[in-house]
Amino acid sequence: MTDRAKIVEVLKDEKRFNLISHMLPDGDSIGSLLAMGEALKLAGKEVEMYTPDYIPRRYMFLVGAEDVSQELPADSADITAVVLDCSDPERLGSLKNAVMNSRQIINIDHHITNHNFGNLNLVDPDAAATGEIVFHLLQDTGITINKSIAEALYVAIASDTGSFKFDNTMPGTHRVVASLLDYSLNPGTLSQKIFDEHPLSFYILLKEALSSLELDLRHGIALMTLSRDIRERSGAKRDDLEGIVNYTRNIEGIELGILFYVEGKNEVKVGFRSKNLDVSVLAGKLNGGGHARAAGCRLYGNYESVKEKVLREAYAMLRQ
Amino acid sequence: MTDRAKIVEVLKDEKRFNLISHMLPDGDSIGSLLAMGEALKLAGKEVEMYTPDYIPRRYMFLVGAEDVSQELPADSADITAVVLDCSDPERLGSLKNAVMNSRQIINIDHHITNHNFGNLNLVDPDAAATGEIVFHLLQDTGITINKSIAEALYVAIASDTGSFKFDNTMPGTHRVVASLLDYSLNPGTLSQKIFDEHPLSFYILLKEALSSLELDLRHGIALMTLSRDIRERSGAKRDDLEGIVNYTRNIEGIELGILFYVEGKNEVKVGFRSKNLDVSVLAGKLNGGGHARAAGCRLYGNYESVKEKVLREAYAMLRQ
Repeated sequence: MTDRAKIVEVLKDEKRFNLISHMLPDGDSIGSLLAMGEALKLAGKEVEMYTPDYIPRRYMFLVGAEDVSQELPADSADITAVVLDCSDPERLGSLKNAVMNSRQIINIDHHITNHNFGNLNLVDPDAAATGEIVFHLLQDTGITINKSIAEALYVAIASDTGSFKFDNTMPGTHRVVASLLDYSLNPGTLSQKIFDEHPLSFYILLKEALSSLELDLRHGIALMTLSRDIRERSGAKRDDLEGIVNYTRNIEGIELGILFYVEGKNEVKVGFRSKNLDVSVLAGKLNGGGHARAAGCRLYGNYESVKEKVLREAYAMLRQ
Repeated sequence: MTDRAKIVEVLKDEKRFNLISHMLPDGDSIGSLLAMGEALKLAGKEVEMYTPDYIPRRYMFLVGAEDVSQELPADSADITAVVLDCSDPERLGSLKNAVMNSRQIINIDHHITNHNFGNLNLVDPDAAATGEIVFHLLQDTGITINKSIAEALYVAIASDTGSFKFDNTMPGTHRVVASLLDYSLNPGTLSQKIFDEHPLSFYILLKEALSSLELDLRHGIALMTLSRDIRERSGAKRDDLEGIVNYTRNIEGIELGILFYVEGKNEVKVGFRSKNLDVSVLAGKLNGGGHARAAGCRLYGNYESVKEKVLREAYAMLRQ
């Protein structure tokens, strides 16, 4: 019997579940958590939901988001723990010990780096999102979903694929989403909430970043610089920086976009984005890491010296 | 026999086709045109493709884009004309007379306002894009598509749905896209080309627009102002203004976003965007029009008087 089949049996047979997703929860972890939680409740189970950190405001409209707690009771060891979208127990943050003490752990995830830390593991790196795995699993357990479950799964899958723009989007991803939209979802309203809306502080930060834009059009490099001071004055959170760096890469004719975020006098966080270049190699040379088109590093030294060092490596790489 | 069935017969039986899409071509009209063109060529037909205006640079990577002409020869009347994504012959611009003189006109479109100007009309307002109709039509004619046809149809459908974010996206839309991705498309590369990349001038314009931001957070209104002078200095084209106005509406807590584009001393173009409000009503009161969440008008008078007039109507509407 495969782990998958055993998980289906456990979901059918057990009466109580604790569902947990990872720290700094994103759309996929929250959507998967809420979908699984509501589906098991519909099937008559007793369910509690946990995340180590608070759910970002943009996802609070989802049904059940108000019921997610940040503290797992100490006497939870007898309840089956279902861990969602979490590659490594370390990513359970403050909930790690309580979860790992559970008698039975079911680990459901799509990260290729997953540590298989469960008693039963369902890890599918070909799934664009954990939400996609949850959808198929609920079908296998015979639980009929409803509109709010479909919404949570839509949010999970749309988030992790950048609204179906990323290369992890597979034909099967669209087939699952077609089945979700059959529950009369409004993709317009959902997308506005999860993608398009930002706090005012983001726009202030974006204006400052665009004002700092430096270009080398001959080599296809765009640079932007922000200081911690500017960020704090704008009221933007650290999360908001994530969206800004994409603006460097998205300029026509630019191959490599770099955002320097000056944390302090001797510390600079550097974000890289590219169209075709493998920036994980560039970041690696500077003791950082990441993905082929999105990577970063943290360097110690003043802004001028860091900038010089980064550009030296960048030009060396572009010359190859 | 339905028009649809007759069109399938004509596509199978005729040997020569002129394909034409509308002026100021967008992703759907270009993708539908190129997909239909290449598919008919694969089926052994003689095909010419036309658009009244040049194809925007971002779509020139599509196979066949170089073969599209802007002038239809005067002696084309005997060749069957297939008009794509065009609601009204007026939208054929400079090609209108030559097209409308054709012996046989096939009209394929998804706009609910379509004038049914063809001898045979296939108008499906439930389709998110004309590309979706073309996909089903090619299936019906038994023409096997290939990767470049699938790419053109992906561009058509993704463009008209804003990467599947708009409410016109139906379960069937995702099902068609799943079938297209089966041809090993790279949604990442395609999305970068059609959505995320903008010329440098766009970012200069965006910086200027964000610098002009005025907010009334109590009523949820955001305003931005750009002058023709600023646009021309930035090198941005008029098209680039379209993307800017969305930044007003996407601010958290804002219900109504307004962009004033000062064309000249006594002429101001006004764009409206909203989250829930029906701005087509607001634009209508100011002799403009549009959709519920995106509308606009053109007013004559200096900037201050136009702004006062627009805000008076906006506040009156928000008070209701």
